[in-house]
Amino acid sequence: MNLRALGEDRLLDQLLPSLPRNTAVILGAGDDCAIVEPGKTGRLQLLKTDCLVEEIHFARITPPGRVGWKAMARPLSDFAAMSGVPLFALVTLIVPARRTFSWVRQLYRGIEKAARKFDVAVVGGETSNIKGPAVISVSLSGFVERGRWVSRAGGKAGDELFVTGRLGGSLGGHHLKFVPRIAESRWLTEKFRINAMMDLSDGLGADLPRLARASRVGFEVDEAALPLNRGRTIRQAISDGEDYELLFAISPKDARSLLSRWRKEFPKVPLTRIGKLNSKFEIRNSKLVKGYVHFQKR
Amino acid sequence: MNLRALGEDRLLDQLLPSLPRNTAVILGAGDDCAIVEPGKTGRLQLLKTDCLVEEIHFARITPPGRVGWKAMARPLSDFAAMSGVPLFALVTLIVPARRTFSWVRQLYRGIEKAARKFDVAVVGGETSNIKGPAVISVSLSGFVERGRWVSRAGGKAGDELFVTGRLGGSLGGHHLKFVPRIAESRWLTEKFRINAMMDLSDGLGADLPRLARASRVGFEVDEAALPLNRGRTIRQAISDGEDYELLFAISPKDARSLLSRWRKEFPKVPLTRIGKLNSKFEIRNSKLVKGYVHFQKR
Repeated sequence: MNLRALGEDRLLDQLLPSLPRNTAVILGAGDDCAIVEPGKTGRLQLLKTDCLVEEIHFARITPPGRVGWKAMARPLSDFAAMSGVPLFALVTLIVPARRTFSWVRQLYRGIEKAARKFDVAVVGGETSNIKGPAVISVSLSGFVERGRWVSRAGGKAGDELFVTGRLGGSLGGHHLKFVPRIAESRWLTEKFRINAMMDLSDGLGADLPRLARASRVGFEVDEAALPLNRGRTIRQAISDGEDYELLFAISPKDARSLLSRWRKEFPKVPLTRIGKLNSKFEIRNSKLVKGYVHFQKR
Repeated sequence: MNLRALGEDRLLDQLLPSLPRNTAVILGAGDDCAIVEPGKTGRLQLLKTDCLVEEIHFARITPPGRVGWKAMARPLSDFAAMSGVPLFALVTLIVPARRTFSWVRQLYRGIEKAARKFDVAVVGGETSNIKGPAVISVSLSGFVERGRWVSRAGGKAGDELFVTGRLGGSLGGHHLKFVPRIAESRWLTEKFRINAMMDLSDGLGADLPRLARASRVGFEVDEAALPLNRGRTIRQAISDGEDYELLFAISPKDARSLLSRWRKEFPKVPLTRIGKLNSKFEIRNSKLVKGYVHFQKR
């Protein structure tokens, strides 16, 4: 059955009952707004929105469950980048009326699976028709403790640079099933002082200069040290993008015990020192090409 | 200059500096997430997202400033429906790369104008390319005092039904320039006990049954009493939609002083008693046809 035959009210009747909730939800999807419990004293609120566009971020033939997972996982990865805890999601689904209900249901299952894994309540959203490609947009709200958040701007000359996981070739499949590094990020800020952090979505070559620019410092990368996914080149690790790994800067003093403690806590997740921040505030490494930037060719 | 030539980073450099802020913003657009001050004790958090799709909700030739205004005003109208105070917005803009920067800038000016009018800070968002029609999505976060929020579900048999403003024919222009009824809604919940409320977006004929169903009551409407826009018919007032007026239910006792006090406070905004809720919990009025429902024909 396609969506035109089903109608919006019946579509929502099908989708809303299974949406994940958590204990902070007072009024979930179905009214004009969602109402939720705000954070405790000492918490700041985090907000993030992210979207996937068919034919740009995924293909018509991409399994819809994977698309749903990714749509939720991408803004979750941004929460990891700030060391935040996600709590509530709003989901906007814009699909052509001839798309089947089955496609939409599978997409929602992917969204819900990712939400449940991180105890995120889906508290509302919207559906709309479009005469064109499908769009899925997810907005997240959550919290971070005052004094614990990490932006891109706190990096200092001399800080060591680390990345989690491996880089390159994500479009081979990783980009549809990655697990946002929220547990790792929360552990890092609990145990260490992290000066600057971000998630790698456009590729190290585009993202590291952004962190450096926000921190008003330069950087040096030891390309030979980059943790590569199997069969991938250094150039791919720099330019492919969609790695959704954490890139962070930490003082050399704090960095000393980091690797050994990390290996005990996350034995399956590599952590690699890839270089350091310096005082040059310019792009030094000629091989470090730009990653993917929307609207532009490489 | 079109967006492909400009590139995403330069587009954001152009758009971000002028975004409205307010005193609760700690970290605005440009990092992985926005960070904002949460509400004071005794406040609940409100969340809402809404989108406009080209060729569905607006035309290619609609002035982009008006589209931007509407994109922000629609979720603000949902805040009015709950008697909430909006604080923060995330803006997602999905446009084909050949669209001009001028079009995007005018759209943003409309968004910012509506945000400034209600002291809403635009704290982040996203831009993406699409091979199809433009999409603008706005997510809002804000607060409502504990004990002050109004859902659709609190209506009681015997309650009187009121609507603000006039209904019908909104697509003639009103839908692009309406002012969300936030001031009116806040005044109503400050002075009176409002049992149920919503904003009229799909038309009284679609929206009133939703309020009645959520409240598990029936309703009777005096069609002759409906406040019509100039030159519009009762049928248009019921079915056209996009009025963005408030529909609310209030006890007959509270209703007694409502109209005279309203006229003193809002002399330019009509307030009209259009009927009442009853215990029938069924749709009684055969003329009350369905309003616009997405994916379905009328």
